[in-house]
Amino acid sequence: MADKITLAYGGGGEETNKLINELFYKHFNNDILTSAEDAAVVNANGKIAFTTDSFTVSPLFFNGGNIGKLAIAGTCNDLAMMGAKPEYISCGFMIEEGLDFETLEKIVKTMSEELSKVGAKIVCGDTKVVPAGSVDKIFINTSGIGHIKKENISAHNLKKGDVILVSRDIGKHGSVIMAHRYNVETTAQSDCKLLWDEVNALIEAGIDIKALRDATRGGLSAVLNEWANASDVGIEIEEDKVPVSDEVTGLCEIFGFEPMDLANEGAFIVAVSQNDAKKAEELLKKFNSNASIIGTVTDGNRVVLKSPWGSSRYIELPKGELLPRIC
Amino acid sequence: MADKITLAYGGGGEETNKLINELFYKHFNNDILTSAEDAAVVNANGKIAFTTDSFTVSPLFFNGGNIGKLAIAGTCNDLAMMGAKPEYISCGFMIEEGLDFETLEKIVKTMSEELSKVGAKIVCGDTKVVPAGSVDKIFINTSGIGHIKKENISAHNLKKGDVILVSRDIGKHGSVIMAHRYNVETTAQSDCKLLWDEVNALIEAGIDIKALRDATRGGLSAVLNEWANASDVGIEIEEDKVPVSDEVTGLCEIFGFEPMDLANEGAFIVAVSQNDAKKAEELLKKFNSNASIIGTVTDGNRVVLKSPWGSSRYIELPKGELLPRIC
Repeated sequence: MADKITLAYGGGGEETNKLINELFYKHFNNDILTSAEDAAVVNANGKIAFTTDSFTVSPLFFNGGNIGKLAIAGTCNDLAMMGAKPEYISCGFMIEEGLDFETLEKIVKTMSEELSKVGAKIVCGDTKVVPAGSVDKIFINTSGIGHIKKENISAHNLKKGDVILVSRDIGKHGSVIMAHRYNVETTAQSDCKLLWDEVNALIEAGIDIKALRDATRGGLSAVLNEWANASDVGIEIEEDKVPVSDEVTGLCEIFGFEPMDLANEGAFIVAVSQNDAKKAEELLKKFNSNASIIGTVTDGNRVVLKSPWGSSRYIELPKGELLPRIC
Repeated sequence: MADKITLAYGGGGEETNKLINELFYKHFNNDILTSAEDAAVVNANGKIAFTTDSFTVSPLFFNGGNIGKLAIAGTCNDLAMMGAKPEYISCGFMIEEGLDFETLEKIVKTMSEELSKVGAKIVCGDTKVVPAGSVDKIFINTSGIGHIKKENISAHNLKKGDVILVSRDIGKHGSVIMAHRYNVETTAQSDCKLLWDEVNALIEAGIDIKALRDATRGGLSAVLNEWANASDVGIEIEEDKVPVSDEVTGLCEIFGFEPMDLANEGAFIVAVSQNDAKKAEELLKKFNSNASIIGTVTDGNRVVLKSPWGSSRYIELPKGELLPRIC
């Protein structure tokens, strides 16, 4: 294999076959993929979840992960958020000619490692190599399907009295990417991580999960507003209960961002019935000690943040250009 | 909606919601998509096919189609080639900031029109807007799933004596994109088209389909070589039976390409048992009068092209940089 990816690797001929056989099949090896048909054949019985995400993050490598880790975690997490076990993943690479083969292999290896953590497989794929200037280094699209283990998890399910929890401290991914982008040094690590284990634990424990969502672009603010809107309810959040690390607080002060607006890639929000709230919190704390009950569902149709000093303000859906190429 | 797509439309906040609600939901409207969960929930029983493809074609609009038509036809056709009816499609847009909203809407409308022709739905999606210079105008990834109507269609199935047919004249898409790229005038139209109707007709007629593949990147040459390789057989093609239009022959003379190496986006190759060959040809001719039996499966392990003058040569897997951004 050449040191650098050339246009010929995307032409559909001999070099493309080489890339597929010697790189992708090596790391993503499984019978469905290597049967090399026009589409993967998978068994499906019952309800399955289906999702897609494109990854354009810059820089490609960041504290705590890289675009490949993100591409697997992101799509697997969208399945998990529907109560579905991530099973079959597709992978579309859009590669700029001249990308180092070594860089591509690092990304592919990370993807393979993440897949094995959750027991999912890449079963179909596509590779495009485009001339320099048509794409910045590499974009990856992953789509995924998985059987739904717990049905009826939905943004439309929230009822007054339900309790809102967050699975860990927020804002890590967004602030880390920002720090890289503006050359600010930080010890913070992206939270980029597969979330199926946590979700599965909640399901196995019989927790009455109403809604689940990972707080990616738009952060906690976007999730809460979408839920309030979809279920036509109010949500009240206690500011001092929302876990934010000192590192993130510091970076937010430098950049003038709100932690609640920042993207996460390994943090989710869950709404459960009041009776199960404590049990869910205890369970989530086993995965991350910062997991916490942060608020409740109320009357009204707005998201309200209550400060520890008794004041309160609305949390709006983030607006304007936050940080492009965050994921 | 603004005239041009800005970075804010990809931020996950208010403007993203606007783009989704006022453009994508308008044209791709269906209950599964507009439920707006993290993943689509679909019913699946039995075997399903799953495929993905990214579209990076340049120019975005060409004789006979545009990137949107290609994105739907391409993925639906990969499902059809596995004997699966295209049903649920995902759609990932990677958009350069500054793209005209009108251009995006034209593309989206074409996608919607193609989807309705085949009765498929976009059930999940993702939109990234990236700074100018990170991507050239727009890339689209579509993944698709569909129930398999006829099982065991595979590149590994070919046996000596089987007959090879092509569904129409070849090389249209590749030569049209080339003509656009090099400002050569042509009346030729891309063959970009959904192929499920033809495939379904073969299935309904009970034709013993061994293998099916649309001849996209790498053209007829790539498909035949992949089949010979996967089934460990030889394939003999009669050169004068391979339908090539005068327009494509002319463009190939200008550019020095072989029609058999050129990409197609609405032409497929099918291998059937000898007994069904005539019936399959008659059936395919109803869809396109250029459909034709072009060869047979033989001993050996190479693809041989026999000229009408008795000479013969090997057809190799195309090599090197054919034409990047063809699809």
